[in-house]
Amino acid sequence: MNEAISIEPVKTCLLALQDTICRALADLETHARFREDAWTRELGGGGLSRVLEQGAVFEKAGVNFSHVHGDRLPPSASVNRPELAGRSFQAMGVSVVVHPDNPFVPTSHLNVRFFVAEKPGAAPVWWFGGGFDLTPCYGFAEDARHWHRVAHSACREFGADVYPKFKQWCDEYFFIRHRGEARGIGGLFFDDLNEWGFSRCFEFMRSVGDHYLPAYLPIVARRKDAPYTGRHKDFQQYRRGRYVEFNLVYDRGTLFGLQSGGRVESILMSLPPRVQWQYNRKEEPGSDEARLAAEFLTPRDWLEQRGASEN
Amino acid sequence: MNEAISIEPVKTCLLALQDTICRALADLETHARFREDAWTRELGGGGLSRVLEQGAVFEKAGVNFSHVHGDRLPPSASVNRPELAGRSFQAMGVSVVVHPDNPFVPTSHLNVRFFVAEKPGAAPVWWFGGGFDLTPCYGFAEDARHWHRVAHSACREFGADVYPKFKQWCDEYFFIRHRGEARGIGGLFFDDLNEWGFSRCFEFMRSVGDHYLPAYLPIVARRKDAPYTGRHKDFQQYRRGRYVEFNLVYDRGTLFGLQSGGRVESILMSLPPRVQWQYNRKEEPGSDEARLAAEFLTPRDWLEQRGASEN
Repeated sequence: MNEAISIEPVKTCLLALQDTICRALADLETHARFREDAWTRELGGGGLSRVLEQGAVFEKAGVNFSHVHGDRLPPSASVNRPELAGRSFQAMGVSVVVHPDNPFVPTSHLNVRFFVAEKPGAAPVWWFGGGFDLTPCYGFAEDARHWHRVAHSACREFGADVYPKFKQWCDEYFFIRHRGEARGIGGLFFDDLNEWGFSRCFEFMRSVGDHYLPAYLPIVARRKDAPYTGRHKDFQQYRRGRYVEFNLVYDRGTLFGLQSGGRVESILMSLPPRVQWQYNRKEEPGSDEARLAAEFLTPRDWLEQRGASEN
Repeated sequence: MNEAISIEPVKTCLLALQDTICRALADLETHARFREDAWTRELGGGGLSRVLEQGAVFEKAGVNFSHVHGDRLPPSASVNRPELAGRSFQAMGVSVVVHPDNPFVPTSHLNVRFFVAEKPGAAPVWWFGGGFDLTPCYGFAEDARHWHRVAHSACREFGADVYPKFKQWCDEYFFIRHRGEARGIGGLFFDDLNEWGFSRCFEFMRSVGDHYLPAYLPIVARRKDAPYTGRHKDFQQYRRGRYVEFNLVYDRGTLFGLQSGGRVESILMSLPPRVQWQYNRKEEPGSDEARLAAEFLTPRDWLEQRGASEN
């Protein structure tokens, strides 16, 4: 762990990732463009938010970069590492949340981040975190398999145990405890990563970021023109309620942002544009809506060979 | 504090309050009726939820009774009173949340509750809590004054300091810290109330419950048939996003319910039926929408004499 860390290349890489993702999403749009807002944080640092709303393909897409620093690591960032409480910190990352218009196109999320926590007279402690995960409201095994195959590719060079470990962490992290239900079909999640040394950890973060578009774009292309009705749109808006519940009650990144005095509009760009809560809604047994929870929201191995009965 | 406590009369009073409120709200409805669900909690206790959806006047109204007990008081209930951590408890209460259809009718909330925390060999510790508060999306000084005058009446018999104290507590409690903005125009909030002895505290809880309808119904009657457009409905759904943010990030009752294994559908009946998040929305200066934050979401004394320029 004595390898020197180098912050600027991480920042350059994150800003390039933001550009690449915005360009790729904008290329699919005819109706809307990304708005860009640069902001500074009173307590130190700032960011560059890019948000597209009411597009033909994307009802909302946010691609945010931020680099903040402060005197004291907020509680949400030190909860698992009490020895770091009170250190000064800097945190930089890119967060992407895409809420498509078509209910058959899943919502996707990517985050990659780098933290350094320092105190006088001690070596800086640094770590990387991130991952990507997919939240369908109508499930397709073909899409889930593609998503996880690309997630597996992102990890392959870093060891055979990496995908299974970070896939499981993702299933555990994106779990809505009060519902007893996964937020989606998972993907990758990692945090506190420094055991491989700085260069290799940085390479891994880059690999996760670079695999997001190849994981997501083919699914968007396959589903974005599928015909749908008001029933499908209602179910999409209802399912987005679960997304809000997870992000506001459990998500560490959201709570870190709100606690650390981040820019509220950038943090909450993850929330879906239109949402419904319906009291005690039950899906018709056997319906496409019922299949979501039954077949997709229970963690499973999406890399297994295709079963005879699958689509 | 040696006065004996008596739990059954509190329960009877709460169930009667639930009935009275449901009847009064249902009387205003032609399109929809309350659905009732009785539920039991695996860890002890249960409740009776009544929810009305898609009414002509009320887009959603929930009037819930619950009485739960457990081996250990959840953290959200003992955060201010660490000496009670680990005690067994029972908690009963009525919660009301009304989300009207017409954007000119404010959302209202009532909660009254009674807690008993016990441990072997020690006297039981009990307290009452509750209050009511109003959340307009278009503000009317006339409504705010009426609401607070009735809140004042609910407290009058219990001492001149009671309304100002619980009004201020309400302003402090229903505050969305990350927005730096009040949830609404307040009302009353109290907790940990036992200093007056059991009978008088119980009387106060009853008085708060009994003043909710006289506070709310005249406002509903005055605004429910006001003409509105899509612009007003959009702003209503956008403002409801703030309601969701408060309830899921800060509300002690919601977190208590989710942590204590309450019935999720009953706890989250407070969430509005249709909600929008719009990125970085700014209101047109001088518009009715801009007046909400400027004139209504900063705590003020609503009992003062009417100013010359007010409506």
